Amino acid sequence: MPLEPAIFAFIGKTAFMITVAEAEKIILENTFSPAAEEVMLSDALGRILAESLVADRDFPPFDRVTMDGIAICHEQFSSGRRQFFIEGVQAAGAPRLSLKNVENCLEVMTGAMLPGGTDTVVRYEDLQIENGVAAVLTEIVFLRQNIHHQGIDRKIKDIIVEKGRKIGPAEIAVAATVGKAKIQVSRLPRTAIISTGDELVAVEQTPLLHQIRASNVFALQALLKNEFQIISQIFHFSDSKELITKGLDEIFEAFEVVILSGAVSEGKFDFVPQVLDALGVEKCFHKVAQRPGKPFWFGRIPGKTVVFALPGNPVSAFLCACRYLSPFLSKSLGERARRLEVGVLTEQVSFKPELIYFLPVRLNWSGGGVVRAQPLPGHGSGDLANLSDADGFLELPLERDVFQAGEAFPLYRYRC
Amino acid sequence: MPLEPAIFAFIGKTAFMITVAEAEKIILENTFSPAAEEVMLSDALGRILAESLVADRDFPPFDRVTMDGIAICHEQFSSGRRQFFIEGVQAAGAPRLSLKNVENCLEVMTGAMLPGGTDTVVRYEDLQIENGVAAVLTEIVFLRQNIHHQGIDRKIKDIIVEKGRKIGPAEIAVAATVGKAKIQVSRLPRTAIISTGDELVAVEQTPLLHQIRASNVFALQALLKNEFQIISQIFHFSDSKELITKGLDEIFEAFEVVILSGAVSEGKFDFVPQVLDALGVEKCFHKVAQRPGKPFWFGRIPGKTVVFALPGNPVSAFLCACRYLSPFLSKSLGERARRLEVGVLTEQVSFKPELIYFLPVRLNWSGGGVVRAQPLPGHGSGDLANLSDADGFLELPLERDVFQAGEAFPLYRYRC
Repeated sequence: MPLEPAIFAFIGKTAFMITVAEAEKIILENTFSPAAEEVMLSDALGRILAESLVADRDFPPFDRVTMDGIAICHEQFSSGRRQFFIEGVQAAGAPRLSLKNVENCLEVMTGAMLPGGTDTVVRYEDLQIENGVAAVLTEIVFLRQNIHHQGIDRKIKDIIVEKGRKIGPAEIAVAATVGKAKIQVSRLPRTAIISTGDELVAVEQTPLLHQIRASNVFALQALLKNEFQIISQIFHFSDSKELITKGLDEIFEAFEVVILSGAVSEGKFDFVPQVLDALGVEKCFHKVAQRPGKPFWFGRIPGKTVVFALPGNPVSAFLCACRYLSPFLSKSLGERARRLEVGVLTEQVSFKPELIYFLPVRLNWSGGGVVRAQPLPGHGSGDLANLSDADGFLELPLERDVFQAGEAFPLYRYRC
Repeated sequence: MPLEPAIFAFIGKTAFMITVAEAEKIILENTFSPAAEEVMLSDALGRILAESLVADRDFPPFDRVTMDGIAICHEQFSSGRRQFFIEGVQAAGAPRLSLKNVENCLEVMTGAMLPGGTDTVVRYEDLQIENGVAAVLTEIVFLRQNIHHQGIDRKIKDIIVEKGRKIGPAEIAVAATVGKAKIQVSRLPRTAIISTGDELVAVEQTPLLHQIRASNVFALQALLKNEFQIISQIFHFSDSKELITKGLDEIFEAFEVVILSGAVSEGKFDFVPQVLDALGVEKCFHKVAQRPGKPFWFGRIPGKTVVFALPGNPVSAFLCACRYLSPFLSKSLGERARRLEVGVLTEQVSFKPELIYFLPVRLNWSGGGVVRAQPLPGHGSGDLANLSDADGFLELPLERDVFQAGEAFPLYRYRC
């Protein structure tokens, strides 16, 4: 099949770069095998389940009353009986009573066991109770109504939640119900986040005119905390080959995921790729045909550490984290495949370079249920402020220059 | 205007219930005024900003080089010069140099200040450098290219992030950049979550046949942690009017938001509304025309405590928390109005009762960017397992019985 001219031009000019799809594939080939650890249920929120949650009994465990009222034998009702002498009360949390006389009833409370000898519940709203007798006021009483039947939701030993699920409030409730005071979750990788660059000063400091405060490391740390509960450690190295080499060497001994930001490009002080090479980190790729984030470098020390060396520009580093680091961690933690989100452009966008363009967008929902993505292109990969105006990135393909309003593209959200 | 028959029938039969819209309105009239507290930036993730983040200098603070290469005076290029002697290197993080001779250039690094006397940057990819001289290989060099201009993103004193925003990774980056080592966020209300019901046992216990383990309190606690970073305290009372009364009396002294689950309906042991009344909690409403969650009770001790007394069924309690408690807390914390999400039914659904139906749904995104909501009705308000299969609830209106595939309705997501 002959190459399309656009593709051919791309290969000719930028053959040293790999595509976004290739980068993703390589990264996902280098994930860890998930390992498990046990945590208290109260510490499990946001973690990835490393065991399936299994029903320890039927759900519900007995025929459970779902309305406050009386329990009767339906045959009595269908034979014409409308008055039922109340033999007693079946409370929730009490052992099961049984009806002594089928012509009578027991008062029953929501959550109670359905009493023996009864098969139907009539709610208070359809009753008049006087002198210990309940009169049924409605003619519509179905056999087995207002009962949540034993085992109808799940049978004992059924899986309720598959392993690989991120634990949210609903999973916490299920875990509590099946008695998981402790729970197996995926162990989190030891993660270091490193900034480089002599232009950076600490948050507490007042930068000189030619300096800026560090921010990428904090954004990356927050992103990993938000998405995976990863508590990462932050380091900073100035632009000295010796210091970076010595520092990284120690960090590789202690951390499984190492994320650098800055000094990966063509600059005179962009030592990172050389240093990584010298330290025996295998380069998997350097440079991806994308904007922002073109200088992204990825490598590994096999069986030990993976290294994401992200560009130093804030939007570039952030995009690479959303698009690559987050799926890498998701798979490494054994999270079940995420659903791909899709957004629809609200305005036409043009982008000429032969790169995949990750367009910052702000989201809203049309009355018709469409996720509308409003372009917020900002002023390039240094425009940090624009990140806080946007909610995510649309991935606009390489092969075209013009993207029309109304077209749908893959969406990478970083804000709910 | 004459009432529609359906509405009229509703008012006739269920006049004691208020509508979902009325319930929401009353709840949002009883929110707290947000108060601020200062936290370390590292503790700010997920909190609500109580101050706007303001640019402490221009963004960027200087004409910033965006590509590694050389900085030149464009007039020289347009006059035909293609060879530039390199005077030196302008590194990122170094004070600004100036070109001594306009015919020369300075090597510049990404993130560096644009040197004095230069106005244009040519990237390494378009250069050949030999013997201290850079030859420009391209004919396309625009004036002021590859420069991120001082103040183009934001001017000093501009607001970058408005107060009321939930702090995500992007806001953490902005806060770091403007030097907010400490940051004003909304103070979280002291929150108690209380279960009632003799049928409940602790997670560590093995329930008898007529018992179940407590789960609502853990789900509610997780939901508040997930959404607002609220660390709530959990209590349990058995079905004794005296114990509940004594316990609540103490709790009202110590907590601003009190969430009960269970014992709010018509049952013989449903003491909660009476007890709340006896303790001087003003009832704002009891019962909402909705399923699940009809018995929902809401009240307040003015100026002191609000009380959400939720039904004990797990789906009911969870829905009420998503639909009412969460917006209440959002407004009380001063969070800017949330964007309403919308989902599109993938299948027809019928629901006859004269109630708003909150239908559990699982979400996916069509290739066209539509949020598709697959109905997972489950087996009623006791079907906890179903919550973990679903991602949210669609709010189906009162006035109709049949909802068609393809129709869009408001969506309350509890899973990202």
